[in-house]
Amino acid sequence: MYGAGDVRIENVTDPRIINSTDAIVEVTRACICGSDLWPYQEMEPGDAGRVMGHEAIGVVESVGADVRSIKPGDLVVMPFAWSDGTCEFCRDGLQTSCLHGGFFGNEEIPGAQSEAVRIPLADGTLYVLPVGKDDALLPSLLTLSDVMGTGQHAAIAARVRPGKSVAVVGDGAVGLCGVIAAKRLGAEQIIIMGRHADRIALAREFGATDVVSERGAEAIERVREMTSGLGAHSVLECVGTAQAMLTAVSIARAGGAVGRVGVPHYEAIPASEPAFFSNITVGGGPAPVRAYIEELLPDILEGRIQPGRVFDRTTDLEGVPDGYRAMNDREAIKVMIEP
Amino acid sequence: MYGAGDVRIENVTDPRIINSTDAIVEVTRACICGSDLWPYQEMEPGDAGRVMGHEAIGVVESVGADVRSIKPGDLVVMPFAWSDGTCEFCRDGLQTSCLHGGFFGNEEIPGAQSEAVRIPLADGTLYVLPVGKDDALLPSLLTLSDVMGTGQHAAIAARVRPGKSVAVVGDGAVGLCGVIAAKRLGAEQIIIMGRHADRIALAREFGATDVVSERGAEAIERVREMTSGLGAHSVLECVGTAQAMLTAVSIARAGGAVGRVGVPHYEAIPASEPAFFSNITVGGGPAPVRAYIEELLPDILEGRIQPGRVFDRTTDLEGVPDGYRAMNDREAIKVMIEP
Repeated sequence: MYGAGDVRIENVTDPRIINSTDAIVEVTRACICGSDLWPYQEMEPGDAGRVMGHEAIGVVESVGADVRSIKPGDLVVMPFAWSDGTCEFCRDGLQTSCLHGGFFGNEEIPGAQSEAVRIPLADGTLYVLPVGKDDALLPSLLTLSDVMGTGQHAAIAARVRPGKSVAVVGDGAVGLCGVIAAKRLGAEQIIIMGRHADRIALAREFGATDVVSERGAEAIERVREMTSGLGAHSVLECVGTAQAMLTAVSIARAGGAVGRVGVPHYEAIPASEPAFFSNITVGGGPAPVRAYIEELLPDILEGRIQPGRVFDRTTDLEGVPDGYRAMNDREAIKVMIEP
Repeated sequence: MYGAGDVRIENVTDPRIINSTDAIVEVTRACICGSDLWPYQEMEPGDAGRVMGHEAIGVVESVGADVRSIKPGDLVVMPFAWSDGTCEFCRDGLQTSCLHGGFFGNEEIPGAQSEAVRIPLADGTLYVLPVGKDDALLPSLLTLSDVMGTGQHAAIAARVRPGKSVAVVGDGAVGLCGVIAAKRLGAEQIIIMGRHADRIALAREFGATDVVSERGAEAIERVREMTSGLGAHSVLECVGTAQAMLTAVSIARAGGAVGRVGVPHYEAIPASEPAFFSNITVGGGPAPVRAYIEELLPDILEGRIQPGRVFDRTTDLEGVPDGYRAMNDREAIKVMIEP
């Protein structure tokens, strides 16, 4: 990506082992993320392009001398953040704050919308998948690198509990995975807030019990009506705009929690009414998806959840620029890439 | 109070039973709250004065026909919010959001800086104390009506855990009670942030292990130094200003939590750096102190905690205007009233 709207497919130098803890992974599946749309809309044009992409499944091609648990030939999923797996934050399950880690797809660390990618700290970062490289579950397993783990993180931060009410702000791939996570954690009422018929239909299949297509004050009113006038116990903020955050805080029940995972394109969280006076907790951030793989994997392998259904279009690398366009135009929910 | 700086002692009509669920309590001890200083500094002058005060211990004088568990002669503590004790929020321990409750010391419900006070929903609101009306523990028991429960709420919202680090922003009575609460919940390192020698000395006696007297960027730097560069697991925001909130979020460790209990005199909580990217949770609000009495009471009765030490001045009703002045000038930490 060279700037807003400017995505090019180019031949670049093959990635190679730089540090002894690196691995090189041949990308089998990658995808375009909703958060990639922010630079797609806003990035200043520049000479140095950025290799985008922070979600992938691939086959390990080679490893550095100090890599212990990962070996060539392994099929692995790559979380969107790389992490050592040993620091105190990693041990606490907050790999996105790893003392020695970082993120994929920026100027320093080229991303995974490519044929191959260098993985720093491979032992801590990669997770070996117990399936073959053409398994039918690959789309769902690919969501473990970001959107399914991010939906899970939103649900955890929003303290979803069995039998309680949940509202999901945003019907993008993360919001849809948030519905899966809320259902999985036992929520009784799951309200999806969005206005795209195809996404809403999928949300219902994933477990949403109610739909709110209004926006702003009307949307807040509708959610209150649906929750005995009290608001939802848990709110998953899966957009990242000021409007979405305001809605999220406004539809939370007193004593409830908002889990936010949309990269914030807002400066501040409303402080006093109702957040303070109703004791609403706001938590969340970049999801430590690495920490959630272990828990979510069996449900995918055994078919209990199918987050891969958020992919409604597949392309090769040549089709990636059009994939960005399609997601940006809301023509596709999420685009999978088969390099 | 008739306006900023204008506190008068006047003869008003005796409170009387209005609803059958009311009780009338003769006030034995009351006090002035840090939050009373906001109207003391800002209230627009007006003809209708406000009977201030939302913290008291007193003897029940009479009860309405439908009061069941409270009887004349009982010594009771009055939480700063009145609540029915039966709605779903009360059952969840969030009495400050009671569907039928409210707060003392405003235009509708006269407060407790007076000889007697009307208590709505007496059964749900009042807590009978197992001591005599001149017990030496009265000052500590009086803090159950607000500051000790509020410090406890800050600690709970900030998820204080045994062996972890805590920073307390603010050395007022609530901050000092926050130190007690943090110590009580097993925190290993307790950093008090404040600059008043008398308060800091008391904080140390209550269990503070470190002191930061700097402000702004320097204070943030100092707390980071004291916490291996990482910040505190839990931060108790006990002030309510924009500066205090910014400091609180900035000194929290990644994955940590800020519990805020200072009535917010700020519009917004900083949203992105570091709150989002470090997965910092912000919670809190008006403390459901009624919910904490049961837990804190034995520690007071058995002398394990002495929150009453935050009172460093006592006055009769005539001295209340000067009590406001003294607290506003930071000459007194907290003023107790013996009507």
